[in-house]
Amino acid sequence: MTTARPRRRADAERNIAAILSAARELFGKGPLPSMNDIARAAGVGRVTLYAHFASREALLEAVIDSAIAETDAALTALDLDRLDPEEALRRLIETSWSILNTLRRTREAALADLDPEQLRRKHDPAFRHVERVLDRGRQAGVFRGDLPLDWLVASCYAVVHAAADEVNAGRIRAGDAPGVVAPTVLAMLAPTR
Amino acid sequence: MTTARPRRRADAERNIAAILSAARELFGKGPLPSMNDIARAAGVGRVTLYAHFASREALLEAVIDSAIAETDAALTALDLDRLDPEEALRRLIETSWSILNTLRRTREAALADLDPEQLRRKHDPAFRHVERVLDRGRQAGVFRGDLPLDWLVASCYAVVHAAADEVNAGRIRAGDAPGVVAPTVLAMLAPTR
Repeated sequence: MTTARPRRRADAERNIAAILSAARELFGKGPLPSMNDIARAAGVGRVTLYAHFASREALLEAVIDSAIAETDAALTALDLDRLDPEEALRRLIETSWSILNTLRRTREAALADLDPEQLRRKHDPAFRHVERVLDRGRQAGVFRGDLPLDWLVASCYAVVHAAADEVNAGRIRAGDAPGVVAPTVLAMLAPTR
Repeated sequence: MTTARPRRRADAERNIAAILSAARELFGKGPLPSMNDIARAAGVGRVTLYAHFASREALLEAVIDSAIAETDAALTALDLDRLDPEEALRRLIETSWSILNTLRRTREAALADLDPEQLRRKHDPAFRHVERVLDRGRQAGVFRGDLPLDWLVASCYAVVHAAADEVNAGRIRAGDAPGVVAPTVLAMLAPTR
């Protein structure tokens, strides 16, 4: 009897992980998956699915939050402080892109459900890494200091996500994205002459 | 009897203009207006409203199309070919912004209803002006030639619309937007050293 609660909690955690994993895969494939599709792919019943996520919107938000947490962890692991700011930004873009690339279609679903500011707020844990690199680069004089930091972060975010939209539209190949995003962002941040 | 059809057509055109004008104002104010609100503001009945626009989504698309047509006309009137490419781009940004600024909230509604590619496609008439200026600047060597033109257009589009999102979020004042967008875009387009 005393083990019942921990076991139930472990079951719940396993179910949540299976649901998030299935949802992430299905949202990533395009046209909005139904809750039934997600329950089936996760190997759980509808009752279990709805017990953890009240709606497809709630599940979509959880998928985004978990991807951002993954990005945050991956960027922390890069230990960007040891690199010069330009190289740090290049690595940051590559790593962020490799995760965003798996969520390009999910972004379309997210834009339909969340307003741009809600979606941006969810990126705050990733933004902190960008802010830190930009701030360090500004202090070192390798990034421009004539525009607000907030705005430069917003511009980086816009350009990286524009690449996701361009890949979705078939105008850029996914593998080529970091190679166009990095020189665009670095130019945008260059000190004014 | 022979004048009945032209009069009916004139009435229809007047109604459509009143509906579009009311819809543009209401969509611009924030949380999604209902079709009833729009009919009331336009001074037409629901039957008339639905006769012209089958759904709020159809009406929203018409508002966007008309704003893009207005932008196209305003950019054509600037006669950008007579200006050097950098100055032409500055004027293009100012003029586009002055229209986008009135549609910042409408953009949120549009993102909820249309996928990013559908929304981008609607901007094609405005993009032709951007492409023309960028192409001329690349040939003159004042804009970079190392990245695809399509991608540079997409990046300009992303940065201008990021400013709209930043103003909506209260991080930039509307009047300051062209002053941050122009130097960001021009830096992004600068030839690589």
